[in-house]
Amino acid sequence: MNWKKTVRVELGDRSYDILIGPGLIARAGREIAGRLKGRRMAVITDEHVGARYLDPLTASLAAEGIAVFPLTLTPGEKTKSFDPLIRVCDHILEAKIERNDAVIALGGGVIGDLTGFAAGIVRRGTRFIQIPTSLLAQVDSSVGGKTGINSRHGKNLIGVFHQPDLVLADTDVLDTLSPREFRAGYAEVAKYGLIDKPDFFVWLEQNWRDVFHQGGAARIEAIATSCQAKADVVAQDERENGLRALLNLGHTFGHALEAATEYDSSRLVHGEGVSIGMVLAHQFSARMNLASPDVARRVEAHLREVGLPVSMAEIPGTLPPAEILLEAITQDKKVKGGKLTFILTRGLGESFVADDVPASEVLSFLREKLGA
Amino acid sequence: MNWKKTVRVELGDRSYDILIGPGLIARAGREIAGRLKGRRMAVITDEHVGARYLDPLTASLAAEGIAVFPLTLTPGEKTKSFDPLIRVCDHILEAKIERNDAVIALGGGVIGDLTGFAAGIVRRGTRFIQIPTSLLAQVDSSVGGKTGINSRHGKNLIGVFHQPDLVLADTDVLDTLSPREFRAGYAEVAKYGLIDKPDFFVWLEQNWRDVFHQGGAARIEAIATSCQAKADVVAQDERENGLRALLNLGHTFGHALEAATEYDSSRLVHGEGVSIGMVLAHQFSARMNLASPDVARRVEAHLREVGLPVSMAEIPGTLPPAEILLEAITQDKKVKGGKLTFILTRGLGESFVADDVPASEVLSFLREKLGA
Repeated sequence: MNWKKTVRVELGDRSYDILIGPGLIARAGREIAGRLKGRRMAVITDEHVGARYLDPLTASLAAEGIAVFPLTLTPGEKTKSFDPLIRVCDHILEAKIERNDAVIALGGGVIGDLTGFAAGIVRRGTRFIQIPTSLLAQVDSSVGGKTGINSRHGKNLIGVFHQPDLVLADTDVLDTLSPREFRAGYAEVAKYGLIDKPDFFVWLEQNWRDVFHQGGAARIEAIATSCQAKADVVAQDERENGLRALLNLGHTFGHALEAATEYDSSRLVHGEGVSIGMVLAHQFSARMNLASPDVARRVEAHLREVGLPVSMAEIPGTLPPAEILLEAITQDKKVKGGKLTFILTRGLGESFVADDVPASEVLSFLREKLGA
Repeated sequence: MNWKKTVRVELGDRSYDILIGPGLIARAGREIAGRLKGRRMAVITDEHVGARYLDPLTASLAAEGIAVFPLTLTPGEKTKSFDPLIRVCDHILEAKIERNDAVIALGGGVIGDLTGFAAGIVRRGTRFIQIPTSLLAQVDSSVGGKTGINSRHGKNLIGVFHQPDLVLADTDVLDTLSPREFRAGYAEVAKYGLIDKPDFFVWLEQNWRDVFHQGGAARIEAIATSCQAKADVVAQDERENGLRALLNLGHTFGHALEAATEYDSSRLVHGEGVSIGMVLAHQFSARMNLASPDVARRVEAHLREVGLPVSMAEIPGTLPPAEILLEAITQDKKVKGGKLTFILTRGLGESFVADDVPASEVLSFLREKLGA
């Protein structure tokens, strides 16, 4: 297949294209050479992704006369920390990447967040290209310019906003994801419907099997719609002063559950936390009489149907008590001045930012849900 | 004295004030509390500056109900590196500085650059206040939002643009600077005249003794004019895509000399390198038939009169040959696509960006100047 979709992220002089379709890694050289003048590129990847895609990417770039300087890191969340960041910065400087050249992130969210951060701080900003290789990265972390690493005080606490110059979302690479990994990314796809696109959510209810099916047009459609949805929000609120907070639907509960399971991916991965978190946000909205309980039931039914966890009871092992979960929520970085901010909903695809949620209500809701 | 000057840096929603005058550290609490809502402030300083000014600053902030979380670092250029950066980031997070709170840099350029960088990356951007305690920092590094640390590949290669919310330039602190340190800062003051303010340069020729004199109105005037000059340039070109390069007048030669003397401050400090560099830039402009040699002679005469070095021969110890200096120049980060960019001049206060300077001309000029 030779067709692809293009989503434009409109950010003035920082605008860029997201190309979505099959075979994009093999065509990366042509797509990049047609847009950027530089002929030196540092490619940052991890051992898993690099073993599969570094050679074809390098060949594609070399065919356009682009010199490639690869650096392969250890896979996993621990790579989002200062030591690997320093290594990547040093690598970019050693490769003498100048202003028209670029740094390419080839991998999932960890590689994208880390590499984008390094590109954002070397020479106070170096050109940056994302080649996301997980569904989660394609529909979420590679769009919008959030980059960063973790600190011992929490996840993503150190970073910058640094927009990429180009995103190449090769849909072929998704065929090699495990079903669990694909599903986790799908939670973020469904999220865009639940934020403000009820028609998209209805379409997903009807077409999700085609989205999960290899090489299908529905998959490209779902990714493009997700990227467009995120691009629209980011274009209106690049630095998360307001509207962009909507993208955190399901994430406040989700992050607390990730922290409660100590980021142990055998128990819970990010997208699963978001799935449970979205169901909880809808249930909490019903409890606060903001939306009908039918909406929460419908969301829960769809996410369960695709195979995602929808309740805290499905998380293996013991969860901490409600008080500890609430503490994790209040330590989340979206807290302002001590008040609790949640994304709640008034109906299907009618999410909004509620920034004055009483902690006591959250606590009793969590107690109820934990069966305590 | 109770009066002060205010320079406004116009950068849309990132605009901020620079307050210039005596007693501003003692008044810091009131100035900050009147502008920022937050009541938690991390103060980053070094042992030298902290010993003198941390207590009065803390008292001033405490009087306004602001909780202070101080961190005192080792003085010196080595502090502009990753390990201290990580320490500052951790400190800011431990102090639970939230979005309305701020991080305060109390010190010279090293503390300002490092602290600004940390503030720029914690939570992808934390409010930041500069209290510069050297003349150089008051007229240069604290204005314009350039922050960063050094790398083993060169100075200031890792950093971000992060504008402060407020700059408090307390002119009383300048009385404790050594004459050499004050003169070094003065080189940057003179630079603003030489860029595009010939009247200011003439005023400096006539009034420099009052600028060097403690507590004089001429000093405040000179600092305010310098800050305004930099603010005007930054407002037009925040991220150094063009015009802002003018601020590098004297810096391309200067940086090469700093590198050649291995940043040994007993031989050469930054402002001294800029002084020699500005004279060289004017002499080179004359050699290229761009400006009259009289201009170079006039610039040299004034800088010599205030006690600044004006030739490479004045640098103690042996300098490397012209070829090595040229290499240092081409490794400077302002090189684009291999071409040499210099700030040259067509007359007194008529500087411009020359971005196609032949390396061969620079080499023979340097040979001549080194007497080789």
